[in-house]
Amino acid sequence: MADNGVAPGRFETELRALISSIREPDQVWLERAWRRLDSLTKPPKSLGRLEEMAAKMALAQQTDRPVATPAAIVLCAGDHGIVAEGVSAWPQEVTGQMVANFVSGGAAINQIARYTGVRLVLVDVGVVSDTSALGGVVQAKVRAGTRNFAEEAAMTREEAAEAFLVGARMVRMLANEGVKVVGTGEMGIGNTTSASALVAAYTNVPVNRVVGRGTGIDDAALARKTKVVENALQFHLAERGDLLATLAALGGLEIAAMAGIFVGAAAAGVCAVADGFISSAAALAAAALCPPCRHFMFPSHLSAEPGHHVAMVALGLEPYMELNMRLGEGTGAALGIGAMGAACAVMSGMATFEQAGVSEGENPVT
Amino acid sequence: MADNGVAPGRFETELRALISSIREPDQVWLERAWRRLDSLTKPPKSLGRLEEMAAKMALAQQTDRPVATPAAIVLCAGDHGIVAEGVSAWPQEVTGQMVANFVSGGAAINQIARYTGVRLVLVDVGVVSDTSALGGVVQAKVRAGTRNFAEEAAMTREEAAEAFLVGARMVRMLANEGVKVVGTGEMGIGNTTSASALVAAYTNVPVNRVVGRGTGIDDAALARKTKVVENALQFHLAERGDLLATLAALGGLEIAAMAGIFVGAAAAGVCAVADGFISSAAALAAAALCPPCRHFMFPSHLSAEPGHHVAMVALGLEPYMELNMRLGEGTGAALGIGAMGAACAVMSGMATFEQAGVSEGENPVT
Repeated sequence: MADNGVAPGRFETELRALISSIREPDQVWLERAWRRLDSLTKPPKSLGRLEEMAAKMALAQQTDRPVATPAAIVLCAGDHGIVAEGVSAWPQEVTGQMVANFVSGGAAINQIARYTGVRLVLVDVGVVSDTSALGGVVQAKVRAGTRNFAEEAAMTREEAAEAFLVGARMVRMLANEGVKVVGTGEMGIGNTTSASALVAAYTNVPVNRVVGRGTGIDDAALARKTKVVENALQFHLAERGDLLATLAALGGLEIAAMAGIFVGAAAAGVCAVADGFISSAAALAAAALCPPCRHFMFPSHLSAEPGHHVAMVALGLEPYMELNMRLGEGTGAALGIGAMGAACAVMSGMATFEQAGVSEGENPVT
Repeated sequence: MADNGVAPGRFETELRALISSIREPDQVWLERAWRRLDSLTKPPKSLGRLEEMAAKMALAQQTDRPVATPAAIVLCAGDHGIVAEGVSAWPQEVTGQMVANFVSGGAAINQIARYTGVRLVLVDVGVVSDTSALGGVVQAKVRAGTRNFAEEAAMTREEAAEAFLVGARMVRMLANEGVKVVGTGEMGIGNTTSASALVAAYTNVPVNRVVGRGTGIDDAALARKTKVVENALQFHLAERGDLLATLAALGGLEIAAMAGIFVGAAAAGVCAVADGFISSAAALAAAALCPPCRHFMFPSHLSAEPGHHVAMVALGLEPYMELNMRLGEGTGAALGIGAMGAACAVMSGMATFEQAGVSEGENPVT
């Protein structure tokens, strides 16, 4: 974390301490994982990326029998001041309405999480409306929506650090309950605009290659959104050298919280699963602030948003599925956790050649 | 089916009757499915291919609430005379040894099927060794392995038709027990060579763009395999005008049985899921013999075998996952069924905008 010349506040100090506590995982488990995988009754490496997934999980969990259960999606919700610029096809109140829909079980993520056996945890880290009466929503509101980053920083450094710590704390709590895999999910009208600005800022890829239609804007709104992001990157140029200031200037409260999930997962030895474009912007922030957390970071699907591909390339993550999804909520992460569970089942349950009495091939090319 | 000028035998007659009984599904269900999907609390089409999957399942099952459970993988095992040409890295006895491994639960498909909640049904349609003592294997051996198609037709027309009917009968039985989705799986040392010959024959794509390393052959064996397939296509040129004769000349008993699964699924209104390269060769045979069965055919993963992509393009199927797998057994199909289940969960369980009281977007682009 670059120093801005000002003494860091309470939350930033805590965040710095968390980040500096995180170490690279012991690579010996990668080697042991491959030894196990190559002994199983299949041509070596013939399960392809499913085996790579299992091996990476073994490294993250420091075991040669990684597991994907219990798993949870932490769905972070927050609002965005940038909606004042007309960048979304949906009114801001939809964020709070959708939180209510998550609570009552009617959203896409409810169905997919239930189907894949993944627990859904809802966190209000910055919704404009009051969600406390809904029940079942973790109340961790840093503020009621970000500021409009076309005019000022979306968050102060302290607000960004506080939201970041909300995510990290959620993972620590879940890890204490035995959770082994945490998926990231989000809800926040306007958050593809914030994610676009962050991805462009962290990767230096031109804005028009990052900005997409989000949940469904037309050509005029797309042009407006692109211009808003370009202007904002120019306006906040001074913050761009400082990773936390960049997140504070252009990010969202739920995006900062998801970045905290990735860092908290690395701290707890838990696998963290990226969802779509917004989640990958958070992953970029986390990997920039805390490089070792890349070892704990797993892709899931490749979304329809062009910036998602840009972020995945920058992170060195290759999504497993290309389903043209663009919903968020953790829907892609939940599907990814399904594939991770299959990979672990293979690694734990298969017989070795010796156990099964199956003849081995003649030096098959691996 | 082209006529070869000879009166068809008993099995071919039954197969012809089955195929001519199959009709195009009523398209009204596709329309109803999209009406339902567009009413749910998400931006229209924002779950991308997951929604397309649900809509296609609605068409196949003739309902706007399609389901993916109960599901079964029908794993068809058979041996191949072509192994005499040195086209595989593995000895022929591995087919029977792996069937024993499936029975005792030690193979990859056992783990993935259990993890995804899919029943595994084993069928011996032509293994050289005797599998009857193993228990739990449906005994439907048409013959103990195919003939070497470098020298003669792998099967007679009647043998191919009989194996085809084995697959169709398995689906009918499972459908009677309530199964809604059937995945195809196979085991047969040498069967990528047979599948390569079939895919080249059915698509007219050059052999060197179809043949791959299978379960792991080296460069010399790859060159030999390519030559074997090229020579066989030349040798059996006379059969190429007749779809069933092509399958008989170049195919495998388990491939014919899987083709029968695709046709049987169309007859029963069940969704049939393709696995990897071998399974897709069977799907090509089925679609050629019985065009309406394309509506009941679902892709799963894209395998590492180059010919799989060729077959998927010819079938107009776009795989959901690219995991570089090349194992078969139905492992990809089981993962695909997992995604189909998620798609159905979304379609059945989500709230509509009206039910949830969520505001709709301003003409979002769909």
